[in-house]
Amino acid sequence: MKVGVLGTGVVGHSLASKLVSLGHEVMMGSRTKDNEKGAEWVSSMGERAHQGDFADTTAFGELLINCTSGLHSLAVLEAAGASSLKGKILLDVSNPLDFSNGFPPSLSVCNTTSLAEQIQEAYPETKVVKTFNTLSHEVMIDPGRVPGEHDLFISGNDVEAKAEVCKLLREGFGWQSIIDLGDITTARGTEAYLLLWTRLWGVLGTSDFNIKIVKREKEST
Amino acid sequence: MKVGVLGTGVVGHSLASKLVSLGHEVMMGSRTKDNEKGAEWVSSMGERAHQGDFADTTAFGELLINCTSGLHSLAVLEAAGASSLKGKILLDVSNPLDFSNGFPPSLSVCNTTSLAEQIQEAYPETKVVKTFNTLSHEVMIDPGRVPGEHDLFISGNDVEAKAEVCKLLREGFGWQSIIDLGDITTARGTEAYLLLWTRLWGVLGTSDFNIKIVKREKEST
Repeated sequence: MKVGVLGTGVVGHSLASKLVSLGHEVMMGSRTKDNEKGAEWVSSMGERAHQGDFADTTAFGELLINCTSGLHSLAVLEAAGASSLKGKILLDVSNPLDFSNGFPPSLSVCNTTSLAEQIQEAYPETKVVKTFNTLSHEVMIDPGRVPGEHDLFISGNDVEAKAEVCKLLREGFGWQSIIDLGDITTARGTEAYLLLWTRLWGVLGTSDFNIKIVKREKEST
Repeated sequence: MKVGVLGTGVVGHSLASKLVSLGHEVMMGSRTKDNEKGAEWVSSMGERAHQGDFADTTAFGELLINCTSGLHSLAVLEAAGASSLKGKILLDVSNPLDFSNGFPPSLSVCNTTSLAEQIQEAYPETKVVKTFNTLSHEVMIDPGRVPGEHDLFISGNDVEAKAEVCKLLREGFGWQSIIDLGDITTARGTEAYLLLWTRLWGVLGTSDFNIKIVKREKEST
């Protein structure tokens, strides 16, 4: 599959590299066509790796992944152009974290809406699927880094798009437990969880963690 | 110990009953001195159970527990009176959940502050300790309802107050794993988590759940 990864930061880099290793053709996109990080990545990854600007990348990908900073995602998608976003799945990994006042970050949007919803609203013909945003990039691509069972969350309006993403996450990335929270408004929950995630990161001293939902089984009631 | 439980809803009722069963003298407080739910509770619980208005309850308790709706907590504490809050530990269990637009609720305060911080700011001589707010009332008083290991979070500025609360939660309530997130500003994280909790509640079909933090051990790096 052709995948367009928007953003050349650590998250974009990790996901793009993992996807190349899985055999996909991947373009990593940035503001400029010849971004240095993109060029290094292309030369290290071989022939299935490509680079381009945001518009090139969005046009290239059958599946798109938003790994840009949440503060800039809407501007990036606008630069990419609505026409090549149309009809595609956009896996939204970003969080609207605002570090302008240092640590802890706040969210630039939250509570009664979410970044994922804003993207979905701006591009109604794109199938926005929110996932991976509750994890460090290392854990995204290697759930086995964290021992035992733990959960990945997914949100989106399009049931088939979520099923397709889940298949990739299960078979390609090794995610065993994926909890479908429901429509794209449930991304409010996972984005807001970052306010807890950042504090846990501080307390645990590592970003190599995740949460496992533990529930009482109905049988034992 | 004398405990003042503010609020006669299900959370206040559960915690007050548990505390009586542990041998504490407990007053459950509401707006009026002769609240019907309070009277029923007193007659069912025996001589260690008392009822009063918010001011009576705050004056009575050596330890105070805020189980009022988060939307009204500041007004309740104002009615209770600053003088009897002074110097005491206030265990804040409430969440600023606003259901005025139905489900899912939003938060009336979040992101750059939290209800716990607003309480701490309003009563600087009270030791506000935020905990239990990430759980259903059944799980608060009986962590064994949910199988296996799972975590309770605690936030607060006063280290000794947190230690005293932790002792009660461990020895009285049976909580094995309590994660100290840090000062009271970390309550932003646990309060915001309610935006995820409410969605999990919907998806899991039960409030009998909790999260367990799973992390990679440094040794295996």
